[in-house]
Amino acid sequence: MRVPFNKLQAEFKRVLLSLNFEEWKAELCATTFAANSADGVYTHGLNRFPTFVEFVKEGLVKPGASPTKENAFGALEQWNGNLGAGILNARFCMARAVELARECGIGCVALRNTNHWMRAGAYGWQAAEAGVIGICFTNTIANLPPWGGIDPRLGNNPIVIAIPRAAGHLVLDMALSQYAVGKLVQYKNNNEELPLPGGYNSKGELSTDAAEILQSKRLLPVGFWKGSGLSMMLDLLAALLSRGNPTARITQSEKEFAVSQVFICIKPPDVKYTDQLIEEVISYTKSSRPGHDSGSVLYPGENALKTREKSFREGVLVDEQIWGQVLRM
Amino acid sequence: MRVPFNKLQAEFKRVLLSLNFEEWKAELCATTFAANSADGVYTHGLNRFPTFVEFVKEGLVKPGASPTKENAFGALEQWNGNLGAGILNARFCMARAVELARECGIGCVALRNTNHWMRAGAYGWQAAEAGVIGICFTNTIANLPPWGGIDPRLGNNPIVIAIPRAAGHLVLDMALSQYAVGKLVQYKNNNEELPLPGGYNSKGELSTDAAEILQSKRLLPVGFWKGSGLSMMLDLLAALLSRGNPTARITQSEKEFAVSQVFICIKPPDVKYTDQLIEEVISYTKSSRPGHDSGSVLYPGENALKTREKSFREGVLVDEQIWGQVLRM
Repeated sequence: MRVPFNKLQAEFKRVLLSLNFEEWKAELCATTFAANSADGVYTHGLNRFPTFVEFVKEGLVKPGASPTKENAFGALEQWNGNLGAGILNARFCMARAVELARECGIGCVALRNTNHWMRAGAYGWQAAEAGVIGICFTNTIANLPPWGGIDPRLGNNPIVIAIPRAAGHLVLDMALSQYAVGKLVQYKNNNEELPLPGGYNSKGELSTDAAEILQSKRLLPVGFWKGSGLSMMLDLLAALLSRGNPTARITQSEKEFAVSQVFICIKPPDVKYTDQLIEEVISYTKSSRPGHDSGSVLYPGENALKTREKSFREGVLVDEQIWGQVLRM
Repeated sequence: MRVPFNKLQAEFKRVLLSLNFEEWKAELCATTFAANSADGVYTHGLNRFPTFVEFVKEGLVKPGASPTKENAFGALEQWNGNLGAGILNARFCMARAVELARECGIGCVALRNTNHWMRAGAYGWQAAEAGVIGICFTNTIANLPPWGGIDPRLGNNPIVIAIPRAAGHLVLDMALSQYAVGKLVQYKNNNEELPLPGGYNSKGELSTDAAEILQSKRLLPVGFWKGSGLSMMLDLLAALLSRGNPTARITQSEKEFAVSQVFICIKPPDVKYTDQLIEEVISYTKSSRPGHDSGSVLYPGENALKTREKSFREGVLVDEQIWGQVLRM
């Protein structure tokens, strides 16, 4: 079922206003939730909205909170999210990093005591829209075993790199687990096999069986030992630079809140230079012969843009049950 | 066979002086080559030295060149490596990024027309020794097919993240191929099976047979499609920020030279705060039960430090044939 973007956005806004979000905050949050679904990231658009509402009702996300500056040194700033909505805090800090990059060439904003920002890529698109390179990452609750271990101690800490381009921004948005938990649940429910190994079964063998992996809780980090190390370093960077919680502390509370994030922006060369170089790289990369008949080589963000165009043309794809739930809120 | 660090360093220096490197340049290059081996990264220490010498003799690496500044805007600088030795250019630019971070909180130096920096992690250790967080990456010649394609169009673009710590720095040093080409050759020569899939065979199946993968040239990016996207973004960042060559152009010349690199440093909180947080994260991560009897959870850089201590105690492990070759140079 498809729903017009404006309808989706309006319903989110109505619910957020009823939860005592100010007008502009409700508007911005609602637009981001709707845009996440419109770009095809349904897990962090409509599908995540009911959980977000629950977190607000439980007092874990505070509608009245705004970020406050705690430290600043040149182009490096540290902000406290005061447990406000993750989307609003992240939008604010990425906007601040954009300003710093415009002033200083590069800027870094670290944010503590914030909440789940939903779709990581949203803030990459934001930076690229503003004409700068954007890099951001967040820590999360522990959901990955470190390499060599079996108990989850690392977050899947999504990282984003975005580069502005007139013909469509390049936005890489990757979590450090090979498959998200939500994706594994989807494969399990559909009784489908994963196309590539996604974790270990309880016998310690690589597996393409989502049910087995969900049971063992041994999701695979991207690149095995490499993603494991990268996850630890991103967690440390986020917690150090923001003086906020590392995954270790977030996990103790069992609910994923009060996370730490980093937003870095860099001023790119002028638009003409940037666009020409990007075209050269995309066209070279796409000159690789496809591996399968149906295969094609895509640049990061290419699919999101196609899905977005279709969503605006034909309406945003929604899960009817969750959509019904939101309409009744 | 083990050789004292000082002996290794002295022999490298002797050869470099004979190639018309100035005294201080020969000293710094020789120390870095020796340190790379001492840390256990033999492929980019002694074992790579003869290739480096060849590149100097062919005129691809210019002993007399020094980096020159081309642009600066606040904490963002762009330098030209003038095809000098990659080690010297990278050391210079990381030192400059350290200065910028001390002045501005964060600093970024982009470098074009430079050469292979040998071990990427060396510059992470350099930043951490200087007491700041260091992030750096390089592009390379195309050696990985993009996801969905079969012809190599992406570099394995190593990326480094380093965090200073009194009890031993944390240094992540990862290339974006699951296994380096050198590693695959080693497995092939030893007739050993890879512990985990490292690429595709010519039938398009995931393989643990290094010979098959070397033949198909279809090395696996870390995290499959994720590493493929990350490689493209790092190449674009390096080439854009430095106004240098992307992988597309480096590959045209067939010899890997005139590459592009980025060095970012960030000022961390004070040493006491940083060290306490790192201990908390390491101890939490290591509390994961080991997956195998012999398994253990390590932090990035832990092995390098152990190997270094052993190298200084007992001498640096060398390949006798290559060592003999250097002695005869």
